[in-house]
Amino acid sequence: MKVVVVGATGTIGSALVYALQNDHEVIAVGNSRGDYLVDMTSEDSIRELLKSLGRFDALAITAGSVAFNSLQAMTLAEWQQGIDSKLMGQINLVRYALDALSDNGSITLTSGIIAREPILKGISACTINGAVNHFVKAAALEMPRGIRINCVSPTVLKESTAPYGDFFPGFIPVPASTVAQSYKKSILGIQNGRIFEVE
Amino acid sequence: MKVVVVGATGTIGSALVYALQNDHEVIAVGNSRGDYLVDMTSEDSIRELLKSLGRFDALAITAGSVAFNSLQAMTLAEWQQGIDSKLMGQINLVRYALDALSDNGSITLTSGIIAREPILKGISACTINGAVNHFVKAAALEMPRGIRINCVSPTVLKESTAPYGDFFPGFIPVPASTVAQSYKKSILGIQNGRIFEVE
Repeated sequence: MKVVVVGATGTIGSALVYALQNDHEVIAVGNSRGDYLVDMTSEDSIRELLKSLGRFDALAITAGSVAFNSLQAMTLAEWQQGIDSKLMGQINLVRYALDALSDNGSITLTSGIIAREPILKGISACTINGAVNHFVKAAALEMPRGIRINCVSPTVLKESTAPYGDFFPGFIPVPASTVAQSYKKSILGIQNGRIFEVE
Repeated sequence: MKVVVVGATGTIGSALVYALQNDHEVIAVGNSRGDYLVDMTSEDSIRELLKSLGRFDALAITAGSVAFNSLQAMTLAEWQQGIDSKLMGQINLVRYALDALSDNGSITLTSGIIAREPILKGISACTINGAVNHFVKAAALEMPRGIRINCVSPTVLKESTAPYGDFFPGFIPVPASTVAQSYKKSILGIQNGRIFEVE
C-alpha cells in the first residue's frame, strides 16, 4: 500500500512511518524535511503537493498546530494559527487528496484530547480539535468510491512530557508508538467516521 | 437587566427580543437594522460596537452564517464564510464583550443541530457548530467575575420549513418562540458551559 504521511518528521509521524515502513511504501511529507515538502497553511502549496504525489492508497496527517494562550490574552493572529494550520490545513489536504486516492483508500486526520478535556491555555486547541472531529463525522458520510475517513485524538505524548507535562496534570502520557497503532487501525481497518481516542 | 441581542432582527433574535422586552432593557444589534449595527466578520466593527454599548448584563448572539455545499464542491471562500462569521464572529464578540459585561453577567452563543446530525451539504455547518460548542465548553472554565457562557443548539425552525425543510428529513421543526426560551434560561438561570439542545 502507498501511504502518504504529512508530518512524517514529527513525533507521531516518525512513529507512524516506523510502524508502516516494513510492509508499505511510505511517502514522507514535512514542512522542512521529507520526500516532499508542504506548507499546510497554503492552499497553493497543498495543490502543488498533490500534483506531485500521483495516486496513493492512504493519507495520514500527523501535522497541524494551534496557539496556546488564555481566552482573554489570545490574539486574533493566534486564533488564526489553529484555523489556518490544524483546521483548514487538514481540510484542504482532504479536499485535494480525494481525487488522488485509490478506490477504497483512506484518510486519517489528527485532533487531540483537549477537545474533550480542556486545559490551561487550551481554548484554541479545544475549539479546533472539536471542529476537526466534527468535520470527520460529516465527511465520512460524503466519501466517494469506498474511501474512508477517521481521526486520531491522542492524549499528551510520553515524548512531550518534558516540555508540556505541567499543562496536563493527571493525564497519563502515551508513547507515540502506541498512538501510531490507531493510525494503522484507520489505514488498514474498515472503520469509517470514527474518532479514535488514545489515552 | 440590560441585554444585548446580536442578530436581533433575525427569526430567533426577534423571538428572543419579544420574550425579553417586557421585563428587560433589550439592545437590538443587527447587520443592517437595529439600535446598533455590526459586521460580525470584522474585528474592527466588533470593537467599535463594544465601545458604543457601555456596560450591560447579558450578551446573546443569534447571528452567524455558514455556507451550504458538498465537501467536494465547497470552495475555500465558502469555508471561510463560516469561519469568519459563525465561528470567529462569535468568538470575537465574546473577547470584546468580556470587559463590558457586569459581574455575574452572561453570554449565550448559537450553534445548531447539524453538529450532532449531519445533513446534505451541511459539512461546514457540522464543523463550525462543533467548534462553537467546544469553544463554549472551554471558555466556561475561564470566565472572570462570575460571568457565565452557554450555547443554544436548535434544530430547524418551524419558520424556516418552507426554504430549508427538504434538507431536514425527519427533523421535527421547533418554533422560534420555543428556541428563545433556551436563551432566556441561559441569561436568567445559573447554568454555565452548557449546550442547550432544542429539538
